[in-house]
This record gives sequence, C-alpha cells and structure tokens, in this order.
Amino acid sequence: MKILARAAALSALFLSTAAIAQTAPDVAWDITADLTTEIGARPAGSEQEAKARDWAVKRLTALGFRNVRVEPFTVTGFVRGAETAELTAPYPHKLHVTALGYSAPTPKGGLKAELVYFPNLDALKAAPEGSLKGKIAFIDHAMTRTQDGSSYGPYGAARRQGPGIAASKGASGVVIRSIGTDMHRNPHTGATSWPAGTAAIPAGAVSLPDAELIARIARTGKPMTMTLVLEGKAQPDMPSGNVIAELPGRDPSLPPILIACHLDSWDLSTGAFDDAAGCGIITAAALRAQAKGQPLRTIRVLWAGAEEIGVFGGAAYARANAGQPHALAMESDFGADRVWRVRFNLSPANKPLRDKLTAALAPLGIAAGAGKANGGADVTAIIAAQKLAVIDLDQDGTRYFDLHHTPDDTLDKIDRKQLEQNVQAWTVVLEIVANEPGPISPE
Amino acid sequence: MKILARAAALSALFLSTAAIAQTAPDVAWDITADLTTEIGARPAGSEQEAKARDWAVKRLTALGFRNVRVEPFTVTGFVRGAETAELTAPYPHKLHVTALGYSAPTPKGGLKAELVYFPNLDALKAAPEGSLKGKIAFIDHAMTRTQDGSSYGPYGAARRQGPGIAASKGASGVVIRSIGTDMHRNPHTGATSWPAGTAAIPAGAVSLPDAELIARIARTGKPMTMTLVLEGKAQPDMPSGNVIAELPGRDPSLPPILIACHLDSWDLSTGAFDDAAGCGIITAAALRAQAKGQPLRTIRVLWAGAEEIGVFGGAAYARANAGQPHALAMESDFGADRVWRVRFNLSPANKPLRDKLTAALAPLGIAAGAGKANGGADVTAIIAAQKLAVIDLDQDGTRYFDLHHTPDDTLDKIDRKQLEQNVQAWTVVLEIVANEPGPISPE
Repeated sequence: MKILARAAALSALFLSTAAIAQTAPDVAWDITADLTTEIGARPAGSEQEAKARDWAVKRLTALGFRNVRVEPFTVTGFVRGAETAELTAPYPHKLHVTALGYSAPTPKGGLKAELVYFPNLDALKAAPEGSLKGKIAFIDHAMTRTQDGSSYGPYGAARRQGPGIAASKGASGVVIRSIGTDMHRNPHTGATSWPAGTAAIPAGAVSLPDAELIARIARTGKPMTMTLVLEGKAQPDMPSGNVIAELPGRDPSLPPILIACHLDSWDLSTGAFDDAAGCGIITAAALRAQAKGQPLRTIRVLWAGAEEIGVFGGAAYARANAGQPHALAMESDFGADRVWRVRFNLSPANKPLRDKLTAALAPLGIAAGAGKANGGADVTAIIAAQKLAVIDLDQDGTRYFDLHHTPDDTLDKIDRKQLEQNVQAWTVVLEIVANEPGPISPE
Repeated sequence: MKILARAAALSALFLSTAAIAQTAPDVAWDITADLTTEIGARPAGSEQEAKARDWAVKRLTALGFRNVRVEPFTVTGFVRGAETAELTAPYPHKLHVTALGYSAPTPKGGLKAELVYFPNLDALKAAPEGSLKGKIAFIDHAMTRTQDGSSYGPYGAARRQGPGIAASKGASGVVIRSIGTDMHRNPHTGATSWPAGTAAIPAGAVSLPDAELIARIARTGKPMTMTLVLEGKAQPDMPSGNVIAELPGRDPSLPPILIACHLDSWDLSTGAFDDAAGCGIITAAALRAQAKGQPLRTIRVLWAGAEEIGVFGGAAYARANAGQPHALAMESDFGADRVWRVRFNLSPANKPLRDKLTAALAPLGIAAGAGKANGGADVTAIIAAQKLAVIDLDQDGTRYFDLHHTPDDTLDKIDRKQLEQNVQAWTVVLEIVANEPGPISPE
C-alpha cells in the first residue's frame, strides 16, 4: 500500500508538473485575451482604465502574486470627440483622421482653411514665421519599417514636435501623415506636446493612404482646402494609477527585480500589442521563473497606468518608490513578436552574469547586441533616479508600427508562437537574475 | 541625302514606336490614378458618379476613342448616413460598422437590442420562426482566401441573403461579419436584398477583428446587447448611366468585341481595385491592340454605371443595345493583380481561335483552365440575351477580398508590375479576337 500511495503521490506530482507545463504558457495569452476582451480600450484617466486596475488586482491575486496594490495618481488626460476631415478642393475626398493626444478642439462647424503641404518636418521648420497664419499645415514623412523600431525616433518627431512648430508659425490647425508603416485607412494617434507659450491648436493624423492622396494632389500644384473637425480635448485631474504585485524572494534584504508593462491603451483599439501582451509576457515569465523554486530575490511586477499620454505612471512609480532600492529594471512594451536580441547595461563586475544570460538566451535564437540597454518608458524614471542595471529583450518590431496606436491593435494580431518564445526568453532571464546573490549594477 | 532622309524617317519611326512602348503601359495606371484622385468615391446615382461620367467621356475622347457617349438610366441608390455600433453588454466595446446597401435606417436614438450569435448562415436558417423578434441577429462565417475568388459565392450569401432571412424570422436588425479575408478594422459593405413581402430592417457589417471579438464573447455564453445606429437609406430615381466608346474596326459589318468594366464604386473608398483598374486595363489594352494597325472588328468599351448596387448598368446596356449583334464579351472587374488563367466559352468551330489564344497567353504565365468562361457582372445580361462567346482572363484574387468594398481600396494597393501583365494579357487577346474574320460563337 505504501508503494502504491507513493506512486499515487508521484503520479499526482507528475500530473501537477504536467499541468503547469501545459497551463503556464497560457498565462501570457490569457491575460492578453481577457484584458482586451473583458475591458477593451482603457485610455489614461478613463473609467475603463479604472476597471482595468480592478481587473488587474483580481487577476494578479488569483495568479498567486503577493502585495498586490494600486498606487494612485492623477493625470491630464485626453477625451476624444467627433472627428472628421474632408478635402474640399481641388477634389472632394473624405479622409480618415484621428486627433492627436492634447489636440485643441476645432471651432463650432469645423475649421475650414487652406491646406499647406510640407514634405517633412524640416520643410515645416524652414517655413517663415507667420506664413501659416489661418492655414492648416500638412506634414508628410517617409517612415519605413525597421526591425529595431529605430525609425520611430526621427519620424515620430513629426507628431511629437510638428504640431507645436506649426502653431508657433501661426497655423490654425495641423494634420500629419500618421506615424506608421502600414497602408490601411486606420489613422495612428499618439500624444503631441506644445512648447511653453504656444497655445494648442487642432492637431490630427490621417491614415497613410489618405496622406498619399494628399501628397499626390499637392504635386499638381493646385491649391488645397480642408474642413477639419476634431472635438476631442484635454481634461485635467483624471484618476489613474499603477498596479504593483510581487513574487517574494527568499532573501527580502536583496533589492528586487523590477519588470514592467503598461496597463493603459489608446482609445482606438483594445491595445493587444500595446501593451496587454507586455503585461502577459512579464507576468507569465515571473510565474514560470518561480515554478522551478522560489528565487532569491523578489520579482516585482509593475503594470503602469497612463503611459500613452506622457508616461505618468512611470514618473509616479519613481516618486512613490524613491526610498526603496531596486536591483535591475526591464520592460516589455513593443508588441508580442519574438525576441531577437538582448542588450545590457551591466557593470564590468557583472560580466559573469552577462555571459550566463547570453549563453542561456542563444538557444532561443537571441543574440547579444551592441549598444546599451535603456529599459522601457515606464522604468526610465526609476532607472535614472537610482542608476539601475538594465536588460533589454528586444522584440521584432518589423510590423509594430503597422498597428501602433491604430484601431487595428487587436487580439487577432497576436502570434501565439512568438508570444511563447517571448515568455521563454523572459523566463530564462528572470531565473538567472532573480537568483543572482551578488550586487547587480550598471556600467 | 535621300539615304540620310530615309534614315531620319526610320529613326523618327523607331522613336515613335519606342515612345508608344514607353507611354502605352501608363494608360492603365493613369486612368486608375486620375479617376481615383480627381473623382474619388463615385457611388451609384451620386453626383460623384455623374462627375465620373463627364470625366470618362473627356478621357476616352482624349485617348482617341470614337462614338463616345453616355446612355443614361435611373436607379434606386443607397445613401449612407451616420453609422456606429456599440456592444453594451457583457463588456462595452465600440465596433467598426458599416451599413449594407439597402439597409433600412435604425429608429431615432438607435436600435438597442439583444444580440444573438449565429456561427453561420445555416444556423440562422435553422432558427425557429419568430425567435428573433425584437433582437439583432449576428451572422458569422469562416471565409478564407482563394486564388479564384470562389469563396465569395458561398460565404457572400451571409450578406446577400442573411439579412432577409433574419428579417423574415422577426429580427429588428442584423449585423454580419464582413465578407472579407483581411484582419483590419475596416468593414466591408455591399448590397443586400429583401425577399418579396419582407420589409427591410437595419443591416450592417462589422470589421473582421470586431467579429472575432463578438465570437469570443459569444463563446462565454453571457447575454450580449448592442446599440446600433445605421442612418443610411435607399433613394429612388437617382441618375446613372453607362459610358460607351469605340475603336472602329476596318469592317463595320462585323459584330464588335465588347469589353467592360464598371465606373461606379462603393462610397467607402476611391475604388482603385474595384473597378478603376478594370477600366484602365481594358482601355489601355484596346489602344495597344490598335497600335499595331487598325483591327478588323470594332472594339467597344463599356464603362458601366451602378454595378455595385445591383448591376443596373449591365441590364441597361443589354436593353439599349438589344438590336445590335455582338461577337464576344469580356470584363475586367477583379482588381489589378496578374492574370493567371484563361477560360473560354467558344464553340467547337472556334477551336483554332482558342488554340491561338492559349498559345499567345502562355508566355505571360497564363494557362488555360477548365470550366466555362462566364464574363463579368456587367456583361452577363447581354451575354444571356444574345448568347455570346466569352473569354475570362482570370485575375489573381488572393488578396482581392482583403480590399473589396472597404475603405482600404485605394491607389496605393495597385501593383504596377501586375497591372502591366494584365494589360499585356488583354492586348494579346484583343489583337487576336478583333482580327478574327470568321464567326465567333459560344459552345
């Protein structure tokens, strides 16, 4: 009977292990699927973002995380309204437009004005002061896809700085070619900002096919006019918050490993790629890293709020947790496609740790890259404040800017095989760093 | 000097030929680009469709066509209004919806009702009579891409017949998964029809990612409710018309070759694939076929009106031209991608003609396929009325239903290399059939 009992116990253990092996890979998918289905769009400061925090607390608790809590803060959000754009001359065309975050609303009845074409941001910068008075500036650009997403920096400037520059030159409104690499009638939103002393003007983005049409018409030299309706506006003092949870380590005296994603999304989609999947990936990996035995260090998970409109959650986290030392920070906020490269910001003393990580990631098709890891948006503030070590698991961004900030960022875009490779990469890293007994520090 | 003069004349001839070779391929592109840019969306019966007819007359005349004329007729069109759909329970989601052609308008404030999920049209057919009273039916389906477009028949039934079936069972409204193969937030419109004695109800299509979301929620078993706003409605007695033009043949006693496309488009896009490109292809090929010397038979070009909402132009053409015999009919209305197959409806006596065509098309990568050619929508009536011979140059439809009837059907989707192969295929066929001296007849 004893032997049978032991066999039964072993069998139960095997079953349990098998169950973990079978179910663990689904945590990332389940979080992505359930958050996008049960909550959907969750823009910063909205009621839906608040529901997402409640959902997150419940889900992280159910998954066995400890110290699950919300750290609240307030933000100036952006509340979308009606939005339409029509080219009225020389040829009438209804365009697909969306307001940029922090756009000013158009006057009642819409803004009707001449549309002035600029092939890129530099051309706008070169326009004489006051030359855009009463006009709408159109900013084109030639962003193309890159695996590492590096085109977002230079081309994204058309969205981040372009509207402010147009406003400073007297423009009544500004429309940009969406910052994206797809060719669908889905405009890409995203926040813009206004230089001190420059009043906000209506600012929108048209889809890339619409931008191609405008460029084609601009080449004829015929004067263009547009009627623009963008009724969205900024709204101060909206509630947001970070959701934080932990898998406590064996040695609470060691600084924790901080891993982050963001919980909010833009309002145009359910935010599967940006960034439900990131929350799924880091959370699944933390659980798998613990499944082989409790790690030495605590793994702290940060599902940040209000990232999209200005990384308010990251700033709030750094403020609220300034007193607590951290060991290392990482973030997943670049979709759900496979990890292809790892980059580090580790001290020379951590070379053995780095070598161990590089060797462990190689079988997953991940090579160490040159350049220093910088973390993601939501960990930037804490990294800067505490001079933290950083590891970047760089995801393949080839199609990221097809979906980024568009209505198209939906669950169907998730490739489950690539999502699984992601979780495996994160698990490998967490198993190693969370069991590192010595100091972990940056260059 | 004589020799030099002759050399100069030859040189001029070569230059001229070279110029034709260089510029001729652009007729198809220019028509597609200019019609979509200068006119844009041109729904049946609209002012824009009328402008497109004027544009077509001017362009065909400028290209050297003769007997360029408009044959007018009137249609019951569909005028789109505001359209929104929101899932209100169990989880709130804003959906991307568009009304189907001939949808009834929703009541003031929108239609708020329970949403009942049917995995396919057969499941809807099986629903008990009266079981949908006061509800909105949702019809899903599993259409996938096919090269020959054959999936449109069975799956398209959800749009063509589904709303009528739902109405006959008492539904207050109906929403279908767009008939398409893409995964973008762009719904596919298209006409539906109502059985005699069944009053129209509001009928819309949601984008495929939205349909996936509804299906996912339906699987939870939780009751779903929807608020649907579709303000578009049918409008009788709208003006439409066919544009007809000819390249006269050497022997006016021989029946002409009829080649067709349609000039109207759906209102959601500029209709580049559907069907500006078709008009570009047939027109460019007719000119090229003539460039080698005036053909024996007249080539008649039909740019049909009001195809999208019920092939009214094709019916009007058959009525207006019933008295004139035709030799053969062909149509280009399946995008701008390459021709991969040719099919015939030719009599056994025309075997030599068929063999000649097959041999001439083979170098372009086009193989003769089994099955009988049936022409396109706009030539169906004249083919049936006069029992005409038909040749189908089958285009690759692999991505056709990604774009079909969506906002995404824009000029940027045209692949100029494939468009050129299309024009070459049509030219080869027209050169042969327009110079066929003997009778051309069907099986």
